[in-house]
Amino acid sequence: MKKIGFVGLGNMGARMVTNLLNANYGVIGYDINEEFVKQLLPKGLKKASDLNDISKDIDIIITMLPNGEIVEQVLDTIIDSLKPGTLITDCSTIDVDKAKILHQKCEDRKLLCLDAPVSGGVGGAENGTLTFMVGGTEDAYEMMLPLFEIMGKKSLLCGSCGTGQATKACNNMLLATTMIGVGEAFNLGKNLGLDPQKLFEILSTSTGSCWAINNYCPIKGVGPESPADNNFEPGFSASLMFKDLSIALKAIQSTNTSAPFGTKAQENFGNMVNQKKGDLDFSAITKFNE
Amino acid sequence: MKKIGFVGLGNMGARMVTNLLNANYGVIGYDINEEFVKQLLPKGLKKASDLNDISKDIDIIITMLPNGEIVEQVLDTIIDSLKPGTLITDCSTIDVDKAKILHQKCEDRKLLCLDAPVSGGVGGAENGTLTFMVGGTEDAYEMMLPLFEIMGKKSLLCGSCGTGQATKACNNMLLATTMIGVGEAFNLGKNLGLDPQKLFEILSTSTGSCWAINNYCPIKGVGPESPADNNFEPGFSASLMFKDLSIALKAIQSTNTSAPFGTKAQENFGNMVNQKKGDLDFSAITKFNE
Repeated sequence: MKKIGFVGLGNMGARMVTNLLNANYGVIGYDINEEFVKQLLPKGLKKASDLNDISKDIDIIITMLPNGEIVEQVLDTIIDSLKPGTLITDCSTIDVDKAKILHQKCEDRKLLCLDAPVSGGVGGAENGTLTFMVGGTEDAYEMMLPLFEIMGKKSLLCGSCGTGQATKACNNMLLATTMIGVGEAFNLGKNLGLDPQKLFEILSTSTGSCWAINNYCPIKGVGPESPADNNFEPGFSASLMFKDLSIALKAIQSTNTSAPFGTKAQENFGNMVNQKKGDLDFSAITKFNE
Repeated sequence: MKKIGFVGLGNMGARMVTNLLNANYGVIGYDINEEFVKQLLPKGLKKASDLNDISKDIDIIITMLPNGEIVEQVLDTIIDSLKPGTLITDCSTIDVDKAKILHQKCEDRKLLCLDAPVSGGVGGAENGTLTFMVGGTEDAYEMMLPLFEIMGKKSLLCGSCGTGQATKACNNMLLATTMIGVGEAFNLGKNLGLDPQKLFEILSTSTGSCWAINNYCPIKGVGPESPADNNFEPGFSASLMFKDLSIALKAIQSTNTSAPFGTKAQENFGNMVNQKKGDLDFSAITKFNE
């Protein structure tokens, strides 16, 4: 069995590690917050005394960190002590250009690398039902596949380096657009005197249907249970959506793509964050825009 | 069996009438284009010599016309010769305020009235699988229900007068927003070097999924058969989407609703129409915005 190092043991990482430990993988873990590490020791995690400690005699290092700068710092710290052929799988959501830089650094040292951001959130991490959107080589993907299958229900090799991050950026930009669109439809419907339950019944079964309304309806008491029924406790926070849209915006700008809705969505969620509503679930954009 | 008059025998109306005739209803029909009428005579349609001829001894009049002004002209022409209790069901897509005016005119003359725009297009009209979004009274809806069941697979009484049109405006505004969003995701993905087939595989199964991508993917050779696979032959033309978005925009403005995406979508499809691309399917907005 491959020996695994795991860096970043927060909400997502801790649950992903737990699933690996439950599948009897040996995992050595590191987090800047020692409390996060301690909580996993009873489950069988081996504690790394520092980042360099994690890099010794290891086959695969998985990172699950808040942003690309931190992922790069981690990589820079350990890269010289990794043996050739070690695989670095970054499951963080970071921007496409940074992901490509990390791939290049790994290639220069004869290390394998995958960008593999996830969808499915904390629930998906807990239940091992994440989706991994993966960029990198076939060889690296094959090496990682048994671990993807433990931590998730689906993984797709989207293409070469950076395509995992690119795919996630496209998906979350579309999610933001559809959620804002759903909100506008409900807000217009309300102002026109429509019963939101009846509007839901039509929209969720007609050409306007989308995940944002069918599975995550932003109106309290309408549709399946969602954060709207729970005072917009996330779920997936507006701050995280803003982070993902900022990654998408960087890609929009660097590729000179025309994407006015994605661009406007980034601004819209940015306003929500600036007005101290970033901790609410992202579906609260409907009320925010009312 | 109720005696039916039908005004407007174009692409949609002719097919709806055919289903009523096949169900052995007696229908007298009128269209300003005599050719449209002639084609239905072998199927059992009775020809009205003029609009007034349609109003004699009739229980239900169905209109399926290009816009609210024409519906109002028709109503004004025949309204004095209709017996009290006659039901006027307008299946055209018209603006909410005009629909309310028509309801009021009918109420003043002791006539019943429903606004009942459809979704499902020419295919739905042909196969009797339309969805009717209905505004009006319970009594009027109950009277019309057997006919809705012949011409469609679903009808929903959304509320009082105008709510059928309001619901359709909300749905098609959301459809336009999701389709533009899908287009931006594919255009960004293309510029980031993503394989559109793999992007479809993720988007259509993740949080970005929506009818616009899952059932009507705007990229040639990707997803189920759609107008994109047929040089963007409609389907549902950009001109018709622009018409529906203009109805939505009127409602946005009259209710003072904040709906920047719906507003922008109306402008976007308007540009497409102005550039002589209105006859293409509305999903061609993806290429138009590329």
